[in-house]
Amino acid sequence: MSDLITSAANHHVKYLRSLVRSRKDRHNERRFVVEGVRLVAEALNVGQPSVLLYVPEQLASTERGQQLLDQLAALPNAFATTPAILAGISDVETPQGIIGAVPMPQINSQLASLIVMLDGVQDPGNVGTLLRSAEAAGVGQVLCLQGTADVWSPKVVRSGMGVHFRLPIVDGLQWETALPLIEHCPQRFAAVQDSALAYDQADLRQPSVLIIGNEANGVSSTTLSYANTITIPMLGALESLNAAVAGSVLLFEAARQRRKSMKDEG
Amino acid sequence: MSDLITSAANHHVKYLRSLVRSRKDRHNERRFVVEGVRLVAEALNVGQPSVLLYVPEQLASTERGQQLLDQLAALPNAFATTPAILAGISDVETPQGIIGAVPMPQINSQLASLIVMLDGVQDPGNVGTLLRSAEAAGVGQVLCLQGTADVWSPKVVRSGMGVHFRLPIVDGLQWETALPLIEHCPQRFAAVQDSALAYDQADLRQPSVLIIGNEANGVSSTTLSYANTITIPMLGALESLNAAVAGSVLLFEAARQRRKSMKDEG
Repeated sequence: MSDLITSAANHHVKYLRSLVRSRKDRHNERRFVVEGVRLVAEALNVGQPSVLLYVPEQLASTERGQQLLDQLAALPNAFATTPAILAGISDVETPQGIIGAVPMPQINSQLASLIVMLDGVQDPGNVGTLLRSAEAAGVGQVLCLQGTADVWSPKVVRSGMGVHFRLPIVDGLQWETALPLIEHCPQRFAAVQDSALAYDQADLRQPSVLIIGNEANGVSSTTLSYANTITIPMLGALESLNAAVAGSVLLFEAARQRRKSMKDEG
Repeated sequence: MSDLITSAANHHVKYLRSLVRSRKDRHNERRFVVEGVRLVAEALNVGQPSVLLYVPEQLASTERGQQLLDQLAALPNAFATTPAILAGISDVETPQGIIGAVPMPQINSQLASLIVMLDGVQDPGNVGTLLRSAEAAGVGQVLCLQGTADVWSPKVVRSGMGVHFRLPIVDGLQWETALPLIEHCPQRFAAVQDSALAYDQADLRQPSVLIIGNEANGVSSTTLSYANTITIPMLGALESLNAAVAGSVLLFEAARQRRKSMKDEG
């Protein structure tokens, strides 16, 4: 084993801390943080991490961790450290024994026929959940308008469970910069509380952009000038659904219509 | 204004603290805790709270809070207190100026034709989100099997946003005690990762029980002996959807089929 990192002043430790805490640093470096055995293993499948710090005895305590430990031995930029150093880097209460920095993937979107656009979704758990639903529903491109929680933050990455390595994601967009990316999708539907169009009445087999707004305030007024509205009919007395649920219901309705259409044709 | 409560040893303070922290106490007392202006206002619409503690100057700072403050003046068991006392009771970092104990509602279920059953859902946010989706999708009865997060915990109540006052909820069930409640619903579908039956191929217009399992382990083996399985087809590489998302997708598919069926007939 190479030298054990025990100082919080070590440059790798400081680098990882900055990527955990600062959106600006993540975006300047084009790197994000992955934590835990499963996410790091997915990262290694995709490419070379910039740096990995791990607690050998903690990894050795599980089978998956031991497998990862064997892989780490061959990596030049993986370093053993102490639980205290890891706890000082991570933003979770119980760090999972390994944390690293990896490049933001550049994934080609190939003119996706189902696009999800996040317009101010603020809760990192909601953003991560929407990314998972997007992948499972067949979305080919995720676009994040400014005002959305940072899709590369540790919380969103954890809750996305690896989807960051597979889905093409573009963030920090304004409508002007988003438009060229959705030119081929004439149908743009923003989910709102009230609309004459129920989501299951729209033909979502056509190339479509589905837009999910902020938890409290919905989509922006700018978005309403670029998109039609669509709604999920609700019974009962509630004012709204959870944003991740509403977005997921739309996404799986698109998937359902497309699956049905293939079956009807086949 | 009546006497200001300033002692953490006050019996109302101790009672509320016990209901925030102890599932056993909530169930023995058949009382649960509501916090914040909106939830307390909903509670007052339904009936008399057992006790309410509030910080007058905090409530007075918003219009809704001021309206509630006016109502409180007429209540014999509403008492002014200090921010420090409220912070000592609540489990949230920023208490919202009012907290109270209210009886668990007894709501008649009238042989619901859409029932959701939670089988070990552990995350309180997921339980609350599922309750909201249930109400919005037209569910008439919520059943919670043992092993599910306490539906009356402060976290679930907050995330349910008032649905506890409107949906008939029965918890602490085992299959033996649940069966009499679903006798009229011959269709019982447990959501699983793999099943020959896609959720949109099932006829959910018929009286149905939809069963959502634990986040990590799914539904129990006992449940599989009482129910058929159903699945949400997924693209991509994910192992699973978020439990609240999966349940909500099923619930809104049932709502969609029923709405469509009414339209086709009408």
